[in-house]
Amino acid sequence: MAKDIEAAAAPEGGEYTAKDYSDPPPAPLIDAEELTKWSLYRAVIAEFVATLLFLYITVATVIGYKHQTDATASGPDAACGGVGILGIAWAFGGMIFILVYCTAGVSGGHINPAVTLGLFLARKVSLVRALLYIVAQCLGAICGVGLVKGFQSAYFVRYGGGANELSDGYSKGTGLAAEIIGTFVLVYTVFSATDPKRNARDSHVPVLAPLPIGFAVFMVHLATIPITGTGINPARSFGAAVIYNNDKAWDDHWIFWVGPFIGAAIAAAYQQYVLRASAAKLGSSASFSR
Amino acid sequence: MAKDIEAAAAPEGGEYTAKDYSDPPPAPLIDAEELTKWSLYRAVIAEFVATLLFLYITVATVIGYKHQTDATASGPDAACGGVGILGIAWAFGGMIFILVYCTAGVSGGHINPAVTLGLFLARKVSLVRALLYIVAQCLGAICGVGLVKGFQSAYFVRYGGGANELSDGYSKGTGLAAEIIGTFVLVYTVFSATDPKRNARDSHVPVLAPLPIGFAVFMVHLATIPITGTGINPARSFGAAVIYNNDKAWDDHWIFWVGPFIGAAIAAAYQQYVLRASAAKLGSSASFSR
Amino acid sequence: MAKDIEAAAAPEGGEYTAKDYSDPPPAPLIDAEELTKWSLYRAVIAEFVATLLFLYITVATVIGYKHQTDATASGPDAACGGVGILGIAWAFGGMIFILVYCTAGVSGGHINPAVTLGLFLARKVSLVRALLYIVAQCLGAICGVGLVKGFQSAYFVRYGGGANELSDGYSKGTGLAAEIIGTFVLVYTVFSATDPKRNARDSHVPVLAPLPIGFAVFMVHLATIPITGTGINPARSFGAAVIYNNDKAWDDHWIFWVGPFIGAAIAAAYQQYVLRASAAKLGSSASFSR
Amino acid sequence: MAKDIEAAAAPEGGEYTAKDYSDPPPAPLIDAEELTKWSLYRAVIAEFVATLLFLYITVATVIGYKHQTDATASGPDAACGGVGILGIAWAFGGMIFILVYCTAGVSGGHINPAVTLGLFLARKVSLVRALLYIVAQCLGAICGVGLVKGFQSAYFVRYGGGANELSDGYSKGTGLAAEIIGTFVLVYTVFSATDPKRNARDSHVPVLAPLPIGFAVFMVHLATIPITGTGINPARSFGAAVIYNNDKAWDDHWIFWVGPFIGAAIAAAYQQYVLRASAAKLGSSASFSR
Repeated sequence: MAKDIEAAAAPEGGEYTAKDYSDPPPAPLIDAEELTKWSLYRAVIAEFVATLLFLYITVATVIGYKHQTDATASGPDAACGGVGILGIAWAFGGMIFILVYCTAGVSGGHINPAVTLGLFLARKVSLVRALLYIVAQCLGAICGVGLVKGFQSAYFVRYGGGANELSDGYSKGTGLAAEIIGTFVLVYTVFSATDPKRNARDSHVPVLAPLPIGFAVFMVHLATIPITGTGINPARSFGAAVIYNNDKAWDDHWIFWVGPFIGAAIAAAYQQYVLRASAAKLGSSASFSR
Repeated sequence: MAKDIEAAAAPEGGEYTAKDYSDPPPAPLIDAEELTKWSLYRAVIAEFVATLLFLYITVATVIGYKHQTDATASGPDAACGGVGILGIAWAFGGMIFILVYCTAGVSGGHINPAVTLGLFLARKVSLVRALLYIVAQCLGAICGVGLVKGFQSAYFVRYGGGANELSDGYSKGTGLAAEIIGTFVLVYTVFSATDPKRNARDSHVPVLAPLPIGFAVFMVHLATIPITGTGINPARSFGAAVIYNNDKAWDDHWIFWVGPFIGAAIAAAYQQYVLRASAAKLGSSASFSR
Repeated sequence: MAKDIEAAAAPEGGEYTAKDYSDPPPAPLIDAEELTKWSLYRAVIAEFVATLLFLYITVATVIGYKHQTDATASGPDAACGGVGILGIAWAFGGMIFILVYCTAGVSGGHINPAVTLGLFLARKVSLVRALLYIVAQCLGAICGVGLVKGFQSAYFVRYGGGANELSDGYSKGTGLAAEIIGTFVLVYTVFSATDPKRNARDSHVPVLAPLPIGFAVFMVHLATIPITGTGINPARSFGAAVIYNNDKAWDDHWIFWVGPFIGAAIAAAYQQYVLRASAAKLGSSASFSR
Repeated sequence: MAKDIEAAAAPEGGEYTAKDYSDPPPAPLIDAEELTKWSLYRAVIAEFVATLLFLYITVATVIGYKHQTDATASGPDAACGGVGILGIAWAFGGMIFILVYCTAGVSGGHINPAVTLGLFLARKVSLVRALLYIVAQCLGAICGVGLVKGFQSAYFVRYGGGANELSDGYSKGTGLAAEIIGTFVLVYTVFSATDPKRNARDSHVPVLAPLPIGFAVFMVHLATIPITGTGINPARSFGAAVIYNNDKAWDDHWIFWVGPFIGAAIAAAYQQYVLRASAAKLGSSASFSR
C-alpha cells in the first residue's frame, strides 16, 4: 500500500518500484567476436573524429580570444575584443553537447577517456573497446590541436597552446582536487543520463541526455578555468601538451590523468553503491542489482 | 459543444477538461513506513551531494571571477578577465539544470529548502522527508563552500566568500521583497513542471522540466545579483554564511530564509487556489481538487 | 507514386500529405458561454501574473546593469560591471521561455498583445478573450515596472526606467520597420510551434515549443536593442512608459503598438496564405484550409 | 548471442542491428511531377524568407555591436557597449536554431547552400529542388542584408557590412581550411540529426534536431570569427558581399563557396562510407545501404 502511494507520488519526492525495465548484462572484459565487427571500428573512428573536432574548435577559440584581446590592447576594444572566458566555457560545453548528440548512436559518445573509464568500471563497455577508444581519443586530440597550430603558428605558442597548467597561487593538491570534483560532476551526469532504470520511467531523461552532459562541461569550466584551465578530459590535456610541448605543461600533466580517473571512479562507485543499491539489499544477484 | 470546441482549440487559448489524469493522494505528514526504506536515505544522500556540488561550482565561479578581475586590474584584461556577472548567473542556473536532471528520479531534485517547503505545503512530500531534505541541503551547502575555502583560502575571505548580503543603497524591505518575488518565480516554475494535470495533457512539460527550472534560477540571478547577490535558496545562503562567518552576512541572514519561504508559500497558494481551482467549484473533495 | 516518395523523403526536403491531423474549427468572435467559465478568468489572471513577472525581472536587470556600470565607472570594473547587453537580451528571451512554459496549459502563454492579436487574426482565440488578455497584459506590465520603481526609486528614473525609445541617429521609419520585422520573427515562431498540422507529424515541434519562442525574443533583442531598445511587445513598452512617464518615451510610443501589430498581422497572413495555402488550391472549404 | 548482448548494451557503447527502420529511396535527380506541386514553391518561399530573416538579424547585430562600441569609445562603456563577439556568435547560432525549427516541416530547414549540397549529394533532395533552394537562399540573403543597409546606411559601410573577409595575418589556405572544417561540423550535425537509421532507434535524436544544429553554428562562430568572420554558409557570404560590394570582400569571396562546399561533401562522404557502411559489407544493394 505504501508502495503504491509512493509510486504514485514519485515525480516529486518518491521512488519507483523496479519492474518496468531490465538491466543489460555487464559487458565482458574481452569480447573476441566484437573485434570482428565493423561496428567496433566505426565507433573507434567516430571517437577519433569527434575528439579531433572537439580540440580543434575549443583550442581555436582559446587562441583566437587571446589574440584578439592582445592585438587590440591599445584600442577601445582592449578588454573585450574576444569571446571572453564565458565564450571559452561555452565552446567546451557546447561542443560536447553536439558531439555526444552526433556520436551517441555510433560509439556511445564518450569523447573523453575519463568517461570511458567510468563506463568500463560500471561494466558498460568491454576492456578492449575501452582501450581502443582511449587510444583513438588521444590521437584525435593530438590531430585537433595540431590543426590549430598549423593554422595559427604565429599565435599558438605565444598564447599557451590551450594547454592545461596550474595557475600561479594554486598548489598541486588543489589542482588535483579540482580535477577530481569536476570530473565527478561530468561522469555523475553521464551515469544519470544513461541509467537504464531511469530511462525506463522518466521519459525526459534520454530525450535531454546530450544537453545536460554538455552543460556539466560548461559549468565545470566556469568554476575551474582560473585554477587549472580545466582538464576533466585526459585526451584534451594530452593532445594540447603533446603539441605545445612545454616543460610546465608536462610537469603538471599527471594531474590531468590522475584527477579525472579518480573522479570518474568515484562517480561510478556513487552510482553503483549508493544510487542503485536498494535492490542489492533485497538480495538480487549482483549482475542485475539496481 | 462549446466544451468540445474549447478542448480542441486548447493549445492556443483554451483549457482541457479534466479527465485524462489522476492526482496522487496528498503525502501524509508522517509516514512511519517511509523511514524504514532505503529509498528515503538514498534520496537524502542525493540531496546532500547535489547541494554540495551546487555550492562548490557556483562559489568557485564567484571567487575565481573576482580574483581574475582583481589580479589583472592594471592590464588590458582588467574589466573582462573573468566570466562576468553573466557567467555567474549561468553557473547558478546551469548547475540547477543538471542537478535537477540528475536527482529528479532519486529525490525529486529539490536542492533548495524553499522548493522543499513549497512541495510540502502542496502535500507532495511528507513532513519527515521535508525536514530530512532541508538538513541534508544545509549540510551539503556548508561542505561545498568549505571545499572552495579549502582550495582558495587566500582569495576566499578577500572576495566575500560568495555570501549573500544586501548591497549598499538597498533597504532590508527591498531585499526581502526581491527574495520573495525571485523565489516565487522559481517555485511557480517547479509547480508548473510537476503538475500532474499538465503532465497528462502536455507531453512537452515533463520532457523539458529541468531546463526551465534552471532558466528560472538564471533569470532571477540576472535581475537580483545587484540587490542581494541573489539567495532564493536558504541552504545556499546558510552554507556561505557559516563558512564566511562575517557579521554583515549574519546580520542580513534572516532575509534569506524568510524571503524564500514566503515566496514559496505564495507560489503554492497561487497554484492551489488559482490555477487549479476550477474543480473545487464543481464540488469535488479538497484532497482531489484540480 | 511521386506522392509516396515525397512523403517518405519528407524530413529533409518534402511535404506530408494532409490526413493525419484535423484543424480545430475557428474560434468564434464572441462566445457567451466562455464568459461563464472559471477557466477564462484563470487564464486572464495567469496572463496578468506572467506579464508582471516578465517586466519585473527584465526591467530590474536593465536598471541593475546600468547602475553597476555607472557606480563603478572609475574602477577596473567600469565597463563590464553588470551583465551586459547580452545579459539583458537573455533576460527578455529567457523569461519568455519559462513563462510560456508555465502558462501554456492555462492561458496559451501569450504574455504579449501582438501574439494575442496574431492568434486572434488566425481565429485561434475569441475576440472577448483577446481583449481581456490584452488588458491583463497591460495591467501586469504596469505593476511589474512599478515594483522595480518601488524597489529602486533612486536609480529608476536616472537610468531610463527600461522604457523603449528611438536611439539617436535612427528615424521613426527605421524604428517602425525594426519593430515590424522583429515581431514578425516572434509571431512566425509562435505559429510554427502551434500549427496543428505540424504538431501531428513532427513530434519534436510541440516538445520544444517554449524554447524557440524564447530564443526568438532573445535574437530580436540582440539585433534591435541598439535601435529602439526592442519592444515587439506593446504591453512591455506601455508598462514602462506609464511608470517612467517621460515625454520622449510617450512621443515614440505609437511605434511600439503599430509596429508589433503590423508584424503580427503579416505573420498571420504568411502562415495562412503561403505556408498553409496548398489545400485551398485543392478546393477545400476555408474553415478547414491547410 | 553476442549480437543480442550488443543490442542490449547499445546506448553506452554498442550498435543496433538494423531492422527497425527503412531508408527512403534516393531522391531522383529531376522529378517532373515535383515541379507541378505547390509544396515545392512553398518550400522555396520559406527558404527565401528564412534566409532573409537570418541575415537581417545577424548583420544588424554585427553592425549594432560595432556602432555601440565605437560611439561610446571615450566613455566607460567603451569596451563592453555591445553584445560582444559572444553575442554575435549567439545571433548566428540562435537564428539557425529557430529557423530550422520553423521551416523543418515546410522545406526541410536548409537555409544554407552547403547544407543543400550535402543533402543533394546524399540523394535526399532532387537536383531541381536543390538548385531552386540555393537561388532562393542567395536572393533572401541579399534582401536581408539590404534591409540592414537601408535602416542603418550611415553605419553599414563604416562597420564593414557584416561581410566575410580574411583577417590580417591569416593565409588564404588557412581561411579555406577553417571554412572546410567549420562546414564539416555543421553538415555532420545535420546528417546525424536526420539519419533515418538513428531516428528510428534513438527517440531523442529528432526531438532535439534543431537545437544541436543551431549550437554547431554557434560553436564554429566562436572558433573562426577571428579568422574569416565565419562563413560556412555561401548564401550568407554572398548576400553580404553583394550589398557591401567592397574589393577585399570580393577578392576573398571564392573561399566562402569552395570551402563550405568541400566541407559539406566530406561530411556526406563520412556519413555514407564510414558511419553507415556496415550494411554495404553485408552485400545489400547500394540504394538501401545503411
